[in-house]
Amino acid sequence: MKRRITRQIHLGKVGIGSDYPISIQSMTTVPVADTEKLAAQVDRLVSRGCDIVRIALDLVEDEARFAAVCRAAKCPIVADIQFCAEAACAAIRAGACGVRVNPGLFHDDDELKKLAHLAIDKNVAIRVGANSGSIGKAAIDKKMATGLPFADALGSALVDGALKQCEKLESFGLKNIKVALKASDVAVTLAACREFAAKTDYPLHLGVTEAGTPAMGVIKSAVGIGTLLNEGIGDTIRVSLTAPPEEEVSAAIRILESCGIRESAPSLVSCPTCGRTEIDLFTLAQKVEALIDELKASGKCISAKKIAVMGCPVNGPGEAREADFGIAGSRNGQVIFFAQGKTIGVYSENDALAKLREAMEK
Amino acid sequence: MKRRITRQIHLGKVGIGSDYPISIQSMTTVPVADTEKLAAQVDRLVSRGCDIVRIALDLVEDEARFAAVCRAAKCPIVADIQFCAEAACAAIRAGACGVRVNPGLFHDDDELKKLAHLAIDKNVAIRVGANSGSIGKAAIDKKMATGLPFADALGSALVDGALKQCEKLESFGLKNIKVALKASDVAVTLAACREFAAKTDYPLHLGVTEAGTPAMGVIKSAVGIGTLLNEGIGDTIRVSLTAPPEEEVSAAIRILESCGIRESAPSLVSCPTCGRTEIDLFTLAQKVEALIDELKASGKCISAKKIAVMGCPVNGPGEAREADFGIAGSRNGQVIFFAQGKTIGVYSENDALAKLREAMEK
Repeated sequence: MKRRITRQIHLGKVGIGSDYPISIQSMTTVPVADTEKLAAQVDRLVSRGCDIVRIALDLVEDEARFAAVCRAAKCPIVADIQFCAEAACAAIRAGACGVRVNPGLFHDDDELKKLAHLAIDKNVAIRVGANSGSIGKAAIDKKMATGLPFADALGSALVDGALKQCEKLESFGLKNIKVALKASDVAVTLAACREFAAKTDYPLHLGVTEAGTPAMGVIKSAVGIGTLLNEGIGDTIRVSLTAPPEEEVSAAIRILESCGIRESAPSLVSCPTCGRTEIDLFTLAQKVEALIDELKASGKCISAKKIAVMGCPVNGPGEAREADFGIAGSRNGQVIFFAQGKTIGVYSENDALAKLREAMEK
Repeated sequence: MKRRITRQIHLGKVGIGSDYPISIQSMTTVPVADTEKLAAQVDRLVSRGCDIVRIALDLVEDEARFAAVCRAAKCPIVADIQFCAEAACAAIRAGACGVRVNPGLFHDDDELKKLAHLAIDKNVAIRVGANSGSIGKAAIDKKMATGLPFADALGSALVDGALKQCEKLESFGLKNIKVALKASDVAVTLAACREFAAKTDYPLHLGVTEAGTPAMGVIKSAVGIGTLLNEGIGDTIRVSLTAPPEEEVSAAIRILESCGIRESAPSLVSCPTCGRTEIDLFTLAQKVEALIDELKASGKCISAKKIAVMGCPVNGPGEAREADFGIAGSRNGQVIFFAQGKTIGVYSENDALAKLREAMEK
C-alpha cells in the first residue's frame, strides 16, 4: 500500500503528513474550568498512546486555565473552537499547537484573517473541520443533479465546502493547514476523503463522526478509517466514541495495528473455537491477553512476535506454526504448550500459562 | 461501489454470489454429541440474524445426531471437516447444504473425487477453505523471489493453493464452489482476496481468521472485511472471535451496516462529548440504544431512520438536523428534545426518553 504524498505540517513536536507516522488524536471531556482534572485526563490519554489531544475552548476567560493545561501536557494540544474567533486567538496565545475551526461558522472574514495571521506568527496549524451537518440541501441537490448518488453527492459537497475554506485561509497566507471531512455515515466519509485526497496535498485527519456507543462506533470507525488507510489515505486519526476517550485511543491503536501500520509485538491470535474444543478457551485467551498486556506494560523486552491460543491440537501447533509460542486445547482439561509449531508438552492450564510467561520473559 | 460479478451458488435456500445479498455465517461451539444444546445454539444464532451456520463434524458415528440438528435448523447448515472425507460424505447424507474442506488436507484424490460426486448428486456446495497456516515456506519464498513483499507473497501463495484445489474439484465436475482465503493478518487477507477476486468468478467467503478476543478481533475483522466489501469483494462473511458466536453475528451485522449494505433503521448517532457536555451522555446514549433495540425487537414498525444523542445544544439540533429525533444535553441537568433539527422543548432526561419512545412508536 502506497501512502498518499502530502505537504508536511507540524503540531509542536508532532509532524503530520506523509513523511511522518500516522498519529492518534483524542479529545478530552472535562471542562477547562476543572483544570487539574483536565490535565490529569490529558496525561492519561498520553500514557495510553495518544499523540495529540484536543480540548474544547469556548470562553476567552478560560485562557489562563487553558495555558496551564498546555504547559503541563506531554503532547501537543489542539483547541477546538465552535464559533468564537476570539477564543481561537486566546488558545494560540495560551500555547495551543493547533486550532480546529469550522471556518464556515465564522461569519466574518476579518475574524478569520486575524486568526490566520496569528497562526502564521506563532507557527500554529489550523485544521479545517468540515462536517456533513453544515452542508446545505441546495449544495447536495446540485451535486445529485449531475447524477451522483446521495452519499457521493454529500461527500462531494463536503469537499467543495472544505476547499473554499482552505482557499480563504491560503489567501491570508496560511500554509499550515490540515483538513477533516467528517460524516456519521461511512460511505459519505469515504467519498469525501477520496475526492479530497485526489484533489489536494493537505494532510488528512480521518474519522467517522458521532459514530455512536462502542459496540457500533468501534466497527464504524474501523471500517471507515481502515478502508481509507488501506488506500494510503490519512495522516492522523481520531476514533469518535460515546465513551471515555481512553477507549478511543485503544481502538485507534488497534486500527493502526490491524492495518499493519503500527506493530505492538507480540500480537495474539486466537481461534473462535468450535464443537471440537474441550476447554474454556474464551477465558484462557483473555488470560493470555492480560499476560501480554502486563509484560508489555512492564517494559520488558519481549522477543516473541506472535502468541497463539487455539482450541484443538489440529488448529494448534499446525495452523499456528508461525506463532513463536502457543497454547492449544487438548483432552481432559489439559492443554498443549507449543513453540514454532512444535509441541513442548501437555500441561494444566496454569502450568502452561507459567511456561508461556517464562518463554516470553526470556 | 460496484460489486464484483461472480457465479451464483446455493446453500439450500440461501443464494451466494453477486445476485444475492451478502450473507452472514457463524460457527457453533457445542459438540455434536450434545445434540439438543447444539440445536438450541443454532436457533439462537438464527434469531440473532445469522443466515448460515457451520458445525464441526469429525466422526462418521455422529451422522444421525448431525442429521437431527440439520432437520431442526431454520437455516442451511454447513459441515466443517478437517481431515476425514468419510465425515464429509456423512454430513451430506445427513442434510448439510454445504461442506467446508481444506482439500489440501485430503491426501487422496479418490476421496476428494467421491466427495465431489456426492456433492453434485445432492446439489451441495463445497467451500474450499485455504488457510495461510497450510502454505509452505518454499511457496512463499518463490513468490518473494519475484519481488513481492511478505504479505503479498503469502497472499499470492494462498491464491495458488486455492486455485489448484478448485481446479481439482472442477475436474471432477463440481461447479458449486465457493472459496475462503484466510489469514490472521489483515494485509495477507486483503492481498489474497484481491488477487483471487481478479482471477476467478468464484463467490468469496470473507473473514480474518483467529482474529482474537473481541477487543482486537472485532477491529481486525471490521478493517479486513470492511475494506474488501468497500471494494465490492465478498459474498458471505464470517467474523471470527474468541467469544460466544452470537457476538460474531452482531459484529457481522454492524460491519454490513457500516458499509451501507444492510440497513437496520433507526440507526443511532451519538457524539463523543467534550468539555462542553454537562450531562452523563455515555449513560444516556446507552439508554437510547437499549430503547431502539427494545422497539426493534418488539417488531413495531418504526418510521424513524436516524436518532441522535448529542452532548450540547450546538452539536445537537444543528449538526444532527438530519436525524428524525434527538436528545441534546443542555444546562442544569436538563436536555433538549428535538425533531428534524427543531427544538421541541427542554425536559428532564426521563421525560425526554418518554418523548422519544412516544415519537418512535407513532
